[in-house]
Amino acid sequence: MTKHKRILLAHGSGGKLTHQLIDKLFVPTFHNQILERLDDGAILLQDSDTEGNERSGMAFTTDSYVVDPIFFPGGDIGRLAVCGTVNDLAMCGAEPLYLSAGLILEEGFPFADLETIVESMQQAAEEAGVSIVTGDTKVVRRGNVDKLFINTAGIGRVFSGVQISGRNAQVGDRVILSGTLGEHGLAVLLQREGLAFQSKIRSDVAPVNKMVSRMLQKFPDAIHVLRDPTRGGLATTLNEIAQSSQVAIELEEVKIPVSPEVLSACELLGFDPLYVANEGKFIAIVAPEVAEPILQFLRRFDLGENAAIIGQVLERPQGKVLLNTSMGGTRLVDMLVGEQLPRIC
Amino acid sequence: MTKHKRILLAHGSGGKLTHQLIDKLFVPTFHNQILERLDDGAILLQDSDTEGNERSGMAFTTDSYVVDPIFFPGGDIGRLAVCGTVNDLAMCGAEPLYLSAGLILEEGFPFADLETIVESMQQAAEEAGVSIVTGDTKVVRRGNVDKLFINTAGIGRVFSGVQISGRNAQVGDRVILSGTLGEHGLAVLLQREGLAFQSKIRSDVAPVNKMVSRMLQKFPDAIHVLRDPTRGGLATTLNEIAQSSQVAIELEEVKIPVSPEVLSACELLGFDPLYVANEGKFIAIVAPEVAEPILQFLRRFDLGENAAIIGQVLERPQGKVLLNTSMGGTRLVDMLVGEQLPRIC
Repeated sequence: MTKHKRILLAHGSGGKLTHQLIDKLFVPTFHNQILERLDDGAILLQDSDTEGNERSGMAFTTDSYVVDPIFFPGGDIGRLAVCGTVNDLAMCGAEPLYLSAGLILEEGFPFADLETIVESMQQAAEEAGVSIVTGDTKVVRRGNVDKLFINTAGIGRVFSGVQISGRNAQVGDRVILSGTLGEHGLAVLLQREGLAFQSKIRSDVAPVNKMVSRMLQKFPDAIHVLRDPTRGGLATTLNEIAQSSQVAIELEEVKIPVSPEVLSACELLGFDPLYVANEGKFIAIVAPEVAEPILQFLRRFDLGENAAIIGQVLERPQGKVLLNTSMGGTRLVDMLVGEQLPRIC
Repeated sequence: MTKHKRILLAHGSGGKLTHQLIDKLFVPTFHNQILERLDDGAILLQDSDTEGNERSGMAFTTDSYVVDPIFFPGGDIGRLAVCGTVNDLAMCGAEPLYLSAGLILEEGFPFADLETIVESMQQAAEEAGVSIVTGDTKVVRRGNVDKLFINTAGIGRVFSGVQISGRNAQVGDRVILSGTLGEHGLAVLLQREGLAFQSKIRSDVAPVNKMVSRMLQKFPDAIHVLRDPTRGGLATTLNEIAQSSQVAIELEEVKIPVSPEVLSACELLGFDPLYVANEGKFIAIVAPEVAEPILQFLRRFDLGENAAIIGQVLERPQGKVLLNTSMGGTRLVDMLVGEQLPRIC
């Protein structure tokens, strides 16, 4: 471990330093088998009834949201805080049921903005079909927090028969992406830089759980991995999967859906859409024989109309992600190093 | 509702403005029956097996911890973040099982301090018998958060047969306090003001769940209300109970355990120990015929050696707390108004 004496922004980027922090500090200290799986949420021990019949397990996850600015095209911190945690539960193969909400407010925060954000949380909760059942509010002095941070934790019920994990990608599997890349990260960045008026880009922040639940019910055995490409983007998420499953993932650049607006904004600002955060998209790694039927199924949903099969799982090079570029070459796609966009979620 | 245009520190104090925020904004917006109970955590719907037999429910709770300073005599923000949420689950009549941890760090935070705090979280988790199973780390730029905030959420299993709620206090019940008041709030304040070296006061921060579990197993029907007097102190907590249960609570000042060190520090600094936060104490409101056996049972535990019966539940004045003072008078004890001690937990 490159031992840093102080915490860097990159420790929270979702990239290499975040993984070092998890692997070298949190996992060894909090040592338990549930945490060590390192999926988007914890799958709690299966509950058995008195006859020893296995009952479906519960999923449990948490995220803190520190996005800046708190209002951006397509959403706000409240919508993000609900959708992000709902989507993490969906990525565990679970039906999200209950959320908690912990708000940390800066003294002087406008009451009207708080009302808007709380209503936005409830709106997103209704879209997802979950209830916000418990909460906490702290207020700190001006200057001790930047406006408002929200933590949500969520509980869901794992669909029976489903075995989803970042460790389950199998050689030959296909990689499906549920829609276009980069909207969330760019919408937040453009708003922050005061450039949003020049752009049509809106955050994709949305709860994907209903689409995922329908897919899991229709194809329960075929879905091996589910992940949402948030912090660190598609590239970082696929590297995590390649490492956890000890496989390689090969992507076809021409198949990866990116809107022309996102492409040109990325060129202008010097970003790579593979590393930009998404908040309403998921990756499914699925058995090859059902990849096409799953794709057609997803495309019937509004949130899945741009879904695409973007690559496949290979045996080697183990733990790596390869990109066959539109120019005909092949290059390694690494995990995010450093921090591309702080406070994007 | 006194409509404030901006959020005040007192909106996070646990007192009157916090209750207004909950009653006028959160409860109407997030409207659902679970949230509306307003206990220390949510009791999730009872789970039934296929034969329709009721199984024990789950408890779910969350708190964010913003204590300043992050290290204080008797504990640190990590120990506090685990004990606070464990104790909230215990106050639901539940056995705490799993915690999540969401950390928000300031860029430049010393790595060694993070290690100490994470180890302290694990130490407290082991004392309580819970596992930290999922987490999240965000890092924000210097000045966007003050050092480190931690959110924990927790899941527990409600003991079967137990019916604990702030609504269940009954006329004639006795009020038991598990130990002395005021250590946590004063330890943090003295450290913050640079006066800790002059005092022996240490925070009482500790997980009370094992003592509570044993009590619930031995006296399952007799415990009507459990609450921990944290933000807003004993006075605010008892006012909440009096209002929820539509009863009055009468306290005997001479019976309330307060150490001489806390009494003299309170006099010096102008605080009332009834309003100072505690993090290793609880209030149990119990059937009168078993109050004395429960008291004797609690006194056998290290954390309960100073437990005392401090008052009783009356019919009137409904929703009020009365104090029979050591001078022979009687006065109303109101809920905390304003913010006595910001960032105490």
